[in-house]
Amino acid sequence: MKKYLVLFVGVSLVAASATRARAADMLPSWNDGPVKQAIVKFVADVTREGPTFVPPPARIAVFDNDGTLWAEQPMYFQFAFALDRVKALAPQHPEWKEQEPFKSVLAGDLKTALAGGEKAMMEIVMATHAGMTTDEFAKIVVDWLATARHPTFKRPYNELIYRPMIELITFLRVNGFKTYIVSGGGVEFMRVWTEAAYRIPPEQVVGSTIVTHFELRDGVPLLLREAKLDFIDDKDGKPVAINKFIGRRPVFAFGNSDGDLQMLQWTAANPATHFVGLVHHTDDKREWAYDRESSVGRLDKALDEATAKGWAVADMKRDWKRVFPFMFEQK
Amino acid sequence: MKKYLVLFVGVSLVAASATRARAADMLPSWNDGPVKQAIVKFVADVTREGPTFVPPPARIAVFDNDGTLWAEQPMYFQFAFALDRVKALAPQHPEWKEQEPFKSVLAGDLKTALAGGEKAMMEIVMATHAGMTTDEFAKIVVDWLATARHPTFKRPYNELIYRPMIELITFLRVNGFKTYIVSGGGVEFMRVWTEAAYRIPPEQVVGSTIVTHFELRDGVPLLLREAKLDFIDDKDGKPVAINKFIGRRPVFAFGNSDGDLQMLQWTAANPATHFVGLVHHTDDKREWAYDRESSVGRLDKALDEATAKGWAVADMKRDWKRVFPFMFEQK
Repeated sequence: MKKYLVLFVGVSLVAASATRARAADMLPSWNDGPVKQAIVKFVADVTREGPTFVPPPARIAVFDNDGTLWAEQPMYFQFAFALDRVKALAPQHPEWKEQEPFKSVLAGDLKTALAGGEKAMMEIVMATHAGMTTDEFAKIVVDWLATARHPTFKRPYNELIYRPMIELITFLRVNGFKTYIVSGGGVEFMRVWTEAAYRIPPEQVVGSTIVTHFELRDGVPLLLREAKLDFIDDKDGKPVAINKFIGRRPVFAFGNSDGDLQMLQWTAANPATHFVGLVHHTDDKREWAYDRESSVGRLDKALDEATAKGWAVADMKRDWKRVFPFMFEQK
Repeated sequence: MKKYLVLFVGVSLVAASATRARAADMLPSWNDGPVKQAIVKFVADVTREGPTFVPPPARIAVFDNDGTLWAEQPMYFQFAFALDRVKALAPQHPEWKEQEPFKSVLAGDLKTALAGGEKAMMEIVMATHAGMTTDEFAKIVVDWLATARHPTFKRPYNELIYRPMIELITFLRVNGFKTYIVSGGGVEFMRVWTEAAYRIPPEQVVGSTIVTHFELRDGVPLLLREAKLDFIDDKDGKPVAINKFIGRRPVFAFGNSDGDLQMLQWTAANPATHFVGLVHHTDDKREWAYDRESSVGRLDKALDEATAKGWAVADMKRDWKRVFPFMFEQK
């Protein structure tokens, strides 16, 4: 009898450690540090029957995009798209030769172009993102991704996605999570490529929007994009958008900047078992190192709150075995 | 050899007709008329490899709610909720005794209350739907559903759901469709009960919204509902909301009123195989009969367009074997 009991316990232990090993194997680009361990523990906790269990429909995970799932230096990629569009559209806008911020964009003088601050930035975005149908805009983005190259890496922008985060998304998905992007980026800028890049489908992408309207043109229904802001999905806007679009409070949230702080707070206050994490850009060799002083992806208050509350902080240099899919593994 | 061939053909025919029979069995509350046949044919077409095939991720189905999935007479149920809330909140608003439209609502004189038209209606909605957190509002709706009774059927409002439409939702879901509600109703009014009623989860409910804002109160993050319209998900707003929330064009749409026309046009213009349908309320014995002259759920232009374009029109009296789940089958 005793012999069988020992055998049984032995088999159970082997099975349990096999499960853990399999889980860990799904995150091969993460070094075996505290963040990876916290992720694996969280997923084990919510999927195991017991007090920490979370039923599958409530397993909502939200990810910021810029700086969390793909890079955001030397400028937000969507803004690089807008600048390229200004150049492409210039022949149709002779008045831009004399008109800021377009004049300086066309002269390659970004500093002067952006001297007008947020207003100048918004003018550039609206001039390049509105005035066409939703289908036309989708095609413009697809064509840009196929041809544009990142200035540092000389690769298509949608190759600058973080391999460890894609593994994390997949790990959550196979454990019954529904994974969402909740980004300050334009929702229609993202939806055309997120499925291929992250396996996140269009209906699970939440982002900033401009006003669109419905129109029948010669009997054909169209959606037209207007040069008018609808909603900015950043800071306070993130929990608002999560509530509006998803209608459930997440149990998992990952961001990288102060723009994600309220989304993380909203998730951290979920009474169910939850996980809250930040990507900290600390790697100026394989990527970039920036935080409190950066104009792009500033991480200051959220870093303090993460430290105070014990949220996970993925230190890119320490925690990521590799960064982009095209990089070979580094020891 | 010939014998085996005959046997093989025989088995194939049996298998094929078994598949059709199984599909038809999933719609037992539909009479075997042109609408049921069109639905079954559509699902067979999109799921069979060939020129009419639609890959599962593109199988997006959208349903209006009021008058399409549940009843809407003698008034939209959400408005019945608002009137009940006026009564419940009256003790906290002594000024309502002298102030229209509240005064007449409290006196039970709905006609006078609504003499102020849309402005009066909006005042009633805002006074009863705003000024609390999202969690508080969800609880108010749940409590109301548990106690309120429909004036004609003396049953909870969420029992007045259409059995044939629930079968249709289920039939689509088991065939790889993602089923959405796209309704003029308030999204947070619907989300608390749609999962139990239709198995449609909160994140697949699109509706009208009021402005909410994020607030930290003593360190606790809250979402507060403001008395301010954000978006009306009706008419032109439906394709706009489909694009914003779902980001894919549906291949299947079902509505029942002129408020659904643009959603049906948007779906009917999908180059992929698609299905567009209307519920026509023709049954004054088991439910209600109304269309062109009704102030609730008016069906006029959309009925003309359905006739002109050959869209499916489910005639409740003719096509539905039973209406509500609590009704016994009628021959």
